[in-house]
Amino acid sequence: MKAVDFTGEVVKILDQSALPHKEEWLELKSTQEVADAIRQMKVRGAPAIGVAAAYALALSKDPQKDAEILKSARPTAVDLSHAVDFMTDMLRNGMVGFQAAAKWEGMNDKKCKEIARHGASLIKGKATLLTHCNTGAIATASVGTALGAIVEAKNQGKGITVYVDETRPRLQGALTAWELEEAGVEHTVICDSAAGSLMMRGAIDMVMVGADRIAANGDAANKIGTYPLSVLAKEHGIPFHVLAPLSSFDSSMENGEGIEIEARDPKEVLEIDGRMMYPKGTKALNPAFDVTPAGNITAWINENGVFRSIDELWKSTKDPSSFSGQLTGCYLR
Amino acid sequence: MKAVDFTGEVVKILDQSALPHKEEWLELKSTQEVADAIRQMKVRGAPAIGVAAAYALALSKDPQKDAEILKSARPTAVDLSHAVDFMTDMLRNGMVGFQAAAKWEGMNDKKCKEIARHGASLIKGKATLLTHCNTGAIATASVGTALGAIVEAKNQGKGITVYVDETRPRLQGALTAWELEEAGVEHTVICDSAAGSLMMRGAIDMVMVGADRIAANGDAANKIGTYPLSVLAKEHGIPFHVLAPLSSFDSSMENGEGIEIEARDPKEVLEIDGRMMYPKGTKALNPAFDVTPAGNITAWINENGVFRSIDELWKSTKDPSSFSGQLTGCYLR
Repeated sequence: MKAVDFTGEVVKILDQSALPHKEEWLELKSTQEVADAIRQMKVRGAPAIGVAAAYALALSKDPQKDAEILKSARPTAVDLSHAVDFMTDMLRNGMVGFQAAAKWEGMNDKKCKEIARHGASLIKGKATLLTHCNTGAIATASVGTALGAIVEAKNQGKGITVYVDETRPRLQGALTAWELEEAGVEHTVICDSAAGSLMMRGAIDMVMVGADRIAANGDAANKIGTYPLSVLAKEHGIPFHVLAPLSSFDSSMENGEGIEIEARDPKEVLEIDGRMMYPKGTKALNPAFDVTPAGNITAWINENGVFRSIDELWKSTKDPSSFSGQLTGCYLR
Repeated sequence: MKAVDFTGEVVKILDQSALPHKEEWLELKSTQEVADAIRQMKVRGAPAIGVAAAYALALSKDPQKDAEILKSARPTAVDLSHAVDFMTDMLRNGMVGFQAAAKWEGMNDKKCKEIARHGASLIKGKATLLTHCNTGAIATASVGTALGAIVEAKNQGKGITVYVDETRPRLQGALTAWELEEAGVEHTVICDSAAGSLMMRGAIDMVMVGADRIAANGDAANKIGTYPLSVLAKEHGIPFHVLAPLSSFDSSMENGEGIEIEARDPKEVLEIDGRMMYPKGTKALNPAFDVTPAGNITAWINENGVFRSIDELWKSTKDPSSFSGQLTGCYLR
């Protein structure tokens, strides 16, 4: 299940705002329509947004103007900028639009598949995994990262069971559950706060999560709630794996302290399905991400392999300076 | 703010199912009406239920029959049984109904106030606390336990700020926020999974929670999500205090392994405000409680004082065998 498709005439987008209730495909005919879908979070997940934008530019009659319209649709999505810049370069060099977009999608797809393959190699036979947020196909326009590895392991015939953190406040666990259902992977949803007691009871063999940005020392920023899982995993001797493309590794950032944490709208916490659950005037703090220190991470997995030390990872990378958050791990904000 | 009141002719109950949207008082004229309100969770929290039941029996013309009706309204609420048994004994010994009920309420009130006073003594001057679930006045028909201590500290003029865990899946954090608003205590709601990053940033000075049952070795069962907080507090060197009446200490249970964890309806996780958020057929696990090992607890606070060792606590107790879960700490199930 990909979130984005291209017919040659329209960009098809799986409307994530309708999931998991309805599987609806939108057919978008212009850059403006794609930009609107991005803004309204009908297509979500940095890589999926990037691929949608690339195909939008393939349809464009004025790529230079449309590039700006797309970039401004989700200004914080680094991937979107990377995809648009890639397209602008390719078009300037005379490449046909849809070929350039397909090239971008192909590069993205290849990286995700490599990550999934390396990640799956960590799962030996029967295993119960825990994951947080959504790092799957619908967010990546490919197989996903952490969720990609889990599904790949299942496809290899391994006996996989997954506990899915609901991931408050935005409940990306619902998308993960939907993807696991589609992939035929046995899964059970839990409240984020229930993971600890499951670990205590020995019910979790491994944690696999994505990352939005990984500092030079290996500290990893990911969806809020990832850090507590890492502390609990350490407490119980459970492997804690972070899966993300090399483009999420930021060699220019010394450690996690430099990673700015986005504070989102308190309403996401205080309102449930649009209904205010708290007394009027109640304050809430809604940090979107937290930072897991490198010391809590068992291995980092990217398209080049599995790395149990961050130094080893950097040594395997030819040009680390070129990587600055192009793809993100927990793609759904 | 008490959840239960008595006029001599009716039992008045603050309808907790309407909070925090509306402050509605129900006037209940019979045992059956009180039993219905308990069953529908309009009055919640074991001590509050116990006090309501005591007053219901004070109105009863057939206390023996009505005792059974009340007990069956919430069969797992140990406090309800204790209150009903107390009333039956007192009435058999010729005490006037409403006097017996007032005696029960007074005993309950005194215990909570002592716990709050001892708990507040742990807070020195300015402090930012974290609490989980609701352990306040509306659940206890008195000042509460952990929340009672926090409000008491504020009333003593200490500069108190509270982070309130929303406490998925039932969002008892909304009731806690409502009580803190009423008490004029500065507070901010967070998703349960955000507590870890706040601790990492040094934003939390102390954790105060209740307990439903505490084993002989000090292991404490409380609302799901308490155990992860204890592990995070340990990781960051933050004091982790458990406040509960002696009646929650169960000397007959060797350790926390013996405490049965109630699995509640998966719908509480999967449905949000009555709306299914997951694909049809999605499974969820909804454990209501978890167990915090004694080693993660800095101090146990009950009506007799603050105890930094569980042995010390048992030594202070004249007849430990008489305590078996009469009151509970995180009262809202």
